[in-house]
Amino acid sequence: MTERVFDSLIVHAQVATIAGSAPHCGSAMREIGLLNDAAVGIIDGNIAFVGSSQDAAALETKECLDARGRLLTPGLVDPHTHLVHSGSRENELAQKLAGIPYLEILQQGGGILSTVHATRRASREELIEQALRSLRTMLLWGTTTVEAKSGYGLDVPTELLQLRVAQELRKLQPVEIISTFLGPHAIPPEYQDRPDAFLEQMIQLLPAIQTEQLADFADIFCEHGVFSVVQSERFLEAAQKAGFGLKIHADEVEPLGGAELAAKLGAVSADHLLAASENGLRSLVSAGVIPVLLPGTSWNLRAKPARARFLIDTLQAPVALATDYNPGSCPTESLQFIMALAANELRMTPEEILTAVTINSAHAIRQAHRVGSIEVGKQADLCLFNADNPAYLVYHFGINHIADVWKKGQHVVVNGLYIDNP
Amino acid sequence: MTERVFDSLIVHAQVATIAGSAPHCGSAMREIGLLNDAAVGIIDGNIAFVGSSQDAAALETKECLDARGRLLTPGLVDPHTHLVHSGSRENELAQKLAGIPYLEILQQGGGILSTVHATRRASREELIEQALRSLRTMLLWGTTTVEAKSGYGLDVPTELLQLRVAQELRKLQPVEIISTFLGPHAIPPEYQDRPDAFLEQMIQLLPAIQTEQLADFADIFCEHGVFSVVQSERFLEAAQKAGFGLKIHADEVEPLGGAELAAKLGAVSADHLLAASENGLRSLVSAGVIPVLLPGTSWNLRAKPARARFLIDTLQAPVALATDYNPGSCPTESLQFIMALAANELRMTPEEILTAVTINSAHAIRQAHRVGSIEVGKQADLCLFNADNPAYLVYHFGINHIADVWKKGQHVVVNGLYIDNP
Ligand SMILES: [Zn+2]
Ligand SMILES: [Zn+2]
Repeated sequence: MTERVFDSLIVHAQVATIAGSAPHCGSAMREIGLLNDAAVGIIDGNIAFVGSSQDAAALETKECLDARGRLLTPGLVDPHTHLVHSGSRENELAQKLAGIPYLEILQQGGGILSTVHATRRASREELIEQALRSLRTMLLWGTTTVEAKSGYGLDVPTELLQLRVAQELRKLQPVEIISTFLGPHAIPPEYQDRPDAFLEQMIQLLPAIQTEQLADFADIFCEHGVFSVVQSERFLEAAQKAGFGLKIHADEVEPLGGAELAAKLGAVSADHLLAASENGLRSLVSAGVIPVLLPGTSWNLRAKPARARFLIDTLQAPVALATDYNPGSCPTESLQFIMALAANELRMTPEEILTAVTINSAHAIRQAHRVGSIEVGKQADLCLFNADNPAYLVYHFGINHIADVWKKGQHVVVNGLYIDNP
Repeated sequence: MTERVFDSLIVHAQVATIAGSAPHCGSAMREIGLLNDAAVGIIDGNIAFVGSSQDAAALETKECLDARGRLLTPGLVDPHTHLVHSGSRENELAQKLAGIPYLEILQQGGGILSTVHATRRASREELIEQALRSLRTMLLWGTTTVEAKSGYGLDVPTELLQLRVAQELRKLQPVEIISTFLGPHAIPPEYQDRPDAFLEQMIQLLPAIQTEQLADFADIFCEHGVFSVVQSERFLEAAQKAGFGLKIHADEVEPLGGAELAAKLGAVSADHLLAASENGLRSLVSAGVIPVLLPGTSWNLRAKPARARFLIDTLQAPVALATDYNPGSCPTESLQFIMALAANELRMTPEEILTAVTINSAHAIRQAHRVGSIEVGKQADLCLFNADNPAYLVYHFGINHIADVWKKGQHVVVNGLYIDNP
């Protein structure tokens, strides 16, 4: 077929190509483009061949891996995490189990504020070390691209430090990191009575972050008791003018209108949406905003989960899924765990789920031109699972099905083991 | 202190001894006997020293492992699994998500009957191979002792084959297997109209199983549409006379009286108990029956979970937890996943959960004299976690915290890796 020599060839795989780079909507999410006994070829970190194992037999390659009928998917994309932070909050578990409301824990200096204090006190090295452990876990569970938000500094130096740490982490390990500035994640203690002054400070910070190219997205926590719809609009409009793509923590607890705001501003994604109104959901889907659902958080908080079936069946929405990895409401790095919750709690089908953690989550961070599907010309980010069909991944829950992972063509996980210097 | 040379010494650990070999009841479940900067010494596969790292410094040892402050617990004990079977049932996921009732899936030859058909058709080698994969997963997630039920044969040769496979598996890998005969797990198709004739056949099989020492326990599925309380009593009484310890799948769907029956017969454990009456729970706890809760199953079936808090707070019950690993209602081998569910769904504390998967689950299979706690003279079954406190294990859910595992003193998992021939 060609005289090119491939760097690697994976043959005899069940390949879920998730074909078609546009967001997969509604019933189209069932179209995961499954190829039987297929092969994928890699040259210079990119996918250079997708076809039958038979056709691949004619190709010249430096390496060849026999998948023995197992499932090969795009590398998983996690479009919502709070990766960089310090400390953990298992000490709050007893309070939570005793039924103490989150607001009370917060008033005692716990909750998000304890992570803010820990993050402000942490050194750059400590932040890097903790995030590296999480990134290694993510990779071992199949995540090859992750969005990472700031928002545990709530002051200028620490917010910048979180973003710079995310930047540095790119050089230290294989998982790709897309950065989001989430300065207005909460109101810091020193601004409790002057939220607008804090918001103004975060708005003033936008140009510097843009100049330093420290973040692609700006995000805000729009919620009763945090930032109002009016405040959120002010911040996001400023961010848009400064050149950021927009994200929003919207309608997690109350139908405040975050979904409607996301639609109005043309945000790239609106996340959480547990309490969003039907009109809000309708308008965001019409506006092309990707709804990012976080079933780990709703499960852990014992909240009513987001309306995935309404989004998919009625609105034909391109639903994406994320871990929301953070030390408070969802301390897990595993998208496979989220996939199991998506089946059982959100009633999504295996095909919808696989689409939601690949091409649709890639769209939620505007990376779908490079990752999220197995197509010639895209980056060779791949997961090989110890499973021969997508349903098995969510059916057999609670364990890690990853066998091998490739990132930009590098074979970074081999038989469940992280390879430090591939 | 002694002139003995230790085979291994683990030092500088947070040791959760789960001290005291009696079942841990009610508030006593909080007593996990945590030792700071402690050491555990192993001689000939048994625990020969538990004390401070300082005292351990004087001991002579062939090997020494520095736990660097991490949590060392007894090896986890899973007291309820359907380990040996053939096939998987991810094909039923779409039906389940579409809301098709289990009874309808069953009528189409799906559900448990499809596993029965697959298991009857499987060769001894196939059954061994599939169970070996599950056992390896269990070990990598910290399970060192597992109960395994028959019950997917529902005919004499296949039930015996399942038990013989369990026996053979003991020689092929390190996880200890305690066998249970669950012939009356369901009514086989060929006996649909003659359940009593089938039950009689299973009763007739008891002496042969006892003579061959193929099982320590006998178990029955006592449920509306399966076996009545009267039938269950007939089977379990015969089993008791034949020398078996008794277990019962009790009151999973309806408060039929399985809990009361377990109390009356002095069963070792009563399992599921989602729908058990308060009186039933009271009487089984009074009778010393261990309640084994299966939160993976209730979560996966979206059923109301068992009343763990009532059992612990009101009845001072020694609650045990198990995976119920099976290809239908709970296809997971991971007790760590079950522990996370126990916190979030059953509202159990980390200390109660750790107790429930060690000493109390050991009591549920009458192995507490050998396993389930870290005490001198007990078998050296140990888990070292990448965590420094028990709360962290359930707080940081969805991933595998195991670093190392020892079974009978053998270091079988090292840094998350299974060592084939230690
Ligand atoms: Zn978030
Ligand atoms: Zn069972």
